[in-house]
This record gives sequence, C-alpha cells and structure tokens, in this order.
Amino acid sequence: MPGSGTDRTRPPVQAAAPVIILVEPQMAENIGMCARAMANFGLSEMRLVAPRDGWPSGGGLKKGATSAASGATYILENARLFASAAEAIADLNHVLATTARERGQMKRVVTPAEAMPPLADRIGGGERVGILFGRERIGLTNEEISFADAILTFPVNPAFASLNLAQAVLLTGYEWFKATGGEPPFRESVLSPPATRETVLSMFDYVEAELDICGFFPPGKKPSMTANLRDILHRLSLTEQEARTLRGVFKSLREGPRRRKPDAP
Amino acid sequence: MPGSGTDRTRPPVQAAAPVIILVEPQMAENIGMCARAMANFGLSEMRLVAPRDGWPSGGGLKKGATSAASGATYILENARLFASAAEAIADLNHVLATTARERGQMKRVVTPAEAMPPLADRIGGGERVGILFGRERIGLTNEEISFADAILTFPVNPAFASLNLAQAVLLTGYEWFKATGGEPPFRESVLSPPATRETVLSMFDYVEAELDICGFFPPGKKPSMTANLRDILHRLSLTEQEARTLRGVFKSLREGPRRRKPDAP
Repeated sequence: MPGSGTDRTRPPVQAAAPVIILVEPQMAENIGMCARAMANFGLSEMRLVAPRDGWPSGGGLKKGATSAASGATYILENARLFASAAEAIADLNHVLATTARERGQMKRVVTPAEAMPPLADRIGGGERVGILFGRERIGLTNEEISFADAILTFPVNPAFASLNLAQAVLLTGYEWFKATGGEPPFRESVLSPPATRETVLSMFDYVEAELDICGFFPPGKKPSMTANLRDILHRLSLTEQEARTLRGVFKSLREGPRRRKPDAP
Repeated sequence: MPGSGTDRTRPPVQAAAPVIILVEPQMAENIGMCARAMANFGLSEMRLVAPRDGWPSGGGLKKGATSAASGATYILENARLFASAAEAIADLNHVLATTARERGQMKRVVTPAEAMPPLADRIGGGERVGILFGRERIGLTNEEISFADAILTFPVNPAFASLNLAQAVLLTGYEWFKATGGEPPFRESVLSPPATRETVLSMFDYVEAELDICGFFPPGKKPSMTANLRDILHRLSLTEQEARTLRGVFKSLREGPRRRKPDAP
C-alpha cells in the first residue's frame, strides 16, 4: 500500500485517545514503527517504560526510531519516559494489558473490536485510558498484567499467532479509529448519481430497436431475449454517466466507421 | 506483543480465502512481512507480479523474505510468479484493488470491514477472489485498478495516511479473519462461574454483622451505609471464587493476627 495518500494540509487528528504504553521495548526501530502506527489512527500519546537501549531525554531522538517512524516524530518527541509500568499508569483511570497467551489471570479478555467502543465512552466521559504493550519476546509480566482492568488480545490464527509489537499497536489503533467514526480519506465522490429509470429504459428501447433492424432476434425469440438482455444490463446498477456511455457504445457499433473528413492537401 | 502465543500443535488455518497479489513489490523483506501477516489470519495463497529483485523459481527463497516471514515460509514457497497483474488475476472471479488515494475511477470504494463479509459469501459460493496490492511507493497503475470490481481502502488519519505494504495486508487479513468467525486463541476460560446470589448475600450478612460488633455504624446510619456498601460490592460482579476470597479477607481482618505456634526449641 503506497504511502502517498497523506494529506499534509489536513490537521493531525489529536482528540483525546488512549495512551500507548510500551514496556521495556528492545529495539528503537520498533518504537518508531509503533509511533507510525499510532499516527495512522490518530493516537498521539506514547509512554516508554525503561527502553532497553535507553532514550535520550530532552531532545535528540534515537536514530533508528526516527527513521522507522516515517514522519511521526512528533509522537516520539512527546513520548514520556518512566522507570516502571506502575509509574507509567499512575495517573490513568482505566488500563488494558495486551497479551498473546493465556496467563491464568482472573480477568476479562476482550478483542480490540470489543474493547474500543466502551473505551471511547470512558474517554468521552473524561477518563484517562492507557493500553500496556509488553516486551518484544516475553510480553508483560504477570504483575504488570495484574495492574490492568482487562486483558486485550487479538483474533489470530492459533497456528500462527505471533504479531509483532507495531502490528499489535496498529490493530489497536485501527479499531480505535473505527470505533470513533474514522472513515477512509476518500469515498466514491467521483461517481455520478445512479441512472434514472428513464435513461435506462430509453437505452433499452434504442438498443432493442436497432438489434431488430439488424435481424439479431430469431423469429419468436425477441421477448425472451429482450428480457434476458435487460436482466444483464439492469444488474450493472449503472450511474447516469455510465448509462450514457453504454448507449454511445451501442450507437457507435451500429453506425460503424465514421466517414473521415478528407485530409487537407 | 510477544510472539509466543503460537500453538504449533494446532493445524494452520487453510480454508478457502482471498488470494493476496503483490504487484511489483520492491523489497524481499516486504514480501516476507506480507507472508507473516497472511499467516496470522489464515490466508495462504500469495501471487507475485514481477518482483523488482526477481524471485527464485523452483526452490531457494530470497533470504530477506524468509527471515521477515518469521516462519510463514510455506506461503513464500507456494507463491506463484506472474509477469503482469492481468495474468495474475486471469483465473479469478472477483478482484479488489487497494489504493490509498482517490484515483477518479468510477468504482465502488469499500473498507476491509465492509468488503470481507460479502467476499466470504462469494468464496463460500465457490468463487475465486483476489486482492491486488501495489508497489511500495506508487501503488497500482490506473490500468491495474481498472481490472478490479471495487476499490479497497483503509480508514486512516487523513493527516497521516501512509500504511506500508505489510500493514495493509495485515488489516485486510484481520478483517477477513473476523468476518469468517475468527476468535482470539483464548478467552477467560479460567474464570470461575459468577457467584450465586446466596454466596453474595451470605458475604453481606457476615460483613455487616461483624461491622456491627466492631461499632462501625454510627447511630441511625446503618441502613444507608449498608445499602452503600452493598452497592459497591455488587458492582464487582464477583465470581463464586472471588466472593469466597473477599469473605476470607473480611474474616481475616476481623480476627486479627493468628496466634502462631510457639517455635520449636
């Protein structure tokens, strides 16, 4: 999917949204890719708990993170650093913890599609909500999971359940964006309106009359063949423009090669 | 999100599903990451149209692709190579084309969430369905888009709309998996059943009686304070096990430190 749909004239989506908390991420590149995934879906607040390779405080970002973020550097620049997951969630009202494995915790398990509409309600009501994502290989500790109100997990093929960190953030952001009314940047605004019945019927009349002249219908077959043809053409649900185009096609075929104007000497 | 939720004892999901067609992908790594995203959601058939760096036919995969696929090599091994998008879709019945930008094509535009349930119906009815993904930077050509029945696009932040190839495949696969009944590999199977009313009321009776003995309720306040306390505890929607645990907590607090057995000399 090419990246060229970005419209820099539109303001970034910056409404209240869940805080994304990465607990001890190993690779700066992964932090950058998470920032990019967040930006794709209007999430902007990132918190980092003890990144393995450190994190420059006060300006100067990790190089690998910046290039992986593909322009979502405003998220990296504003990321806040914490020493532990407990400190990173201290000011929040509601917390989800992501995990790919059953942990035997007595906790509700929700998918992103289930979780996001109620989270949007909470955030709309003024609550601060965060989502914990664990270390690349080993995830969150059981203690970190115990901090959460519910477990967030992803519907994946059980035989191939491994999602990387940025993919998990991506699916979370995607469902958040959908739950808050997110739409694609464009729809079929270029379509002309559906054809009126009059346009379609007049096209039918034209083509059937011309086919009659051409001797297309074997004796006695006209009614059934006409019904069949109308059935095919109706199924197209043509727009006004398309119905005119198709009529032009029939007309051009019927009239054959146009007589060219003689070339100027 | 750690990758350790994969359960290799379960068979890979291999039901009929859309074919993923990558048109002139530039980087072998991206092909591998697409294979991984497909495996996550039970897609298995990949087609490659003229990959920039070539593709070894008959055994021996691109190194970068294999490592990026994180084990989804069966998809790479079975990927079929075509010279053009037209050839890659020739045997299919229904085709979607992904694009991030409006192309002025007179075509229906659908999101993955909208597209996948009807695609599942088509596939269930025996049709062969494919989804075209374009080159990393420039996407599909207008001609390639014209081959498709509809345009597939993604709900993304318009100010940051750039999704990479594997992320677009990931979101597509995710919605396919959801549309075909995909569930997380686990749910809260470890939860004990909800507490019966009897267990909860008996816990209330116990704690209220003990609080009375302790002189907790100021004169005349017992009814309102009891109602308030019951309200808090009801809100927990306790399981049977949790109600017992909580009763144990109250009891232990009430009884104070247990008398320890004297130490052996």
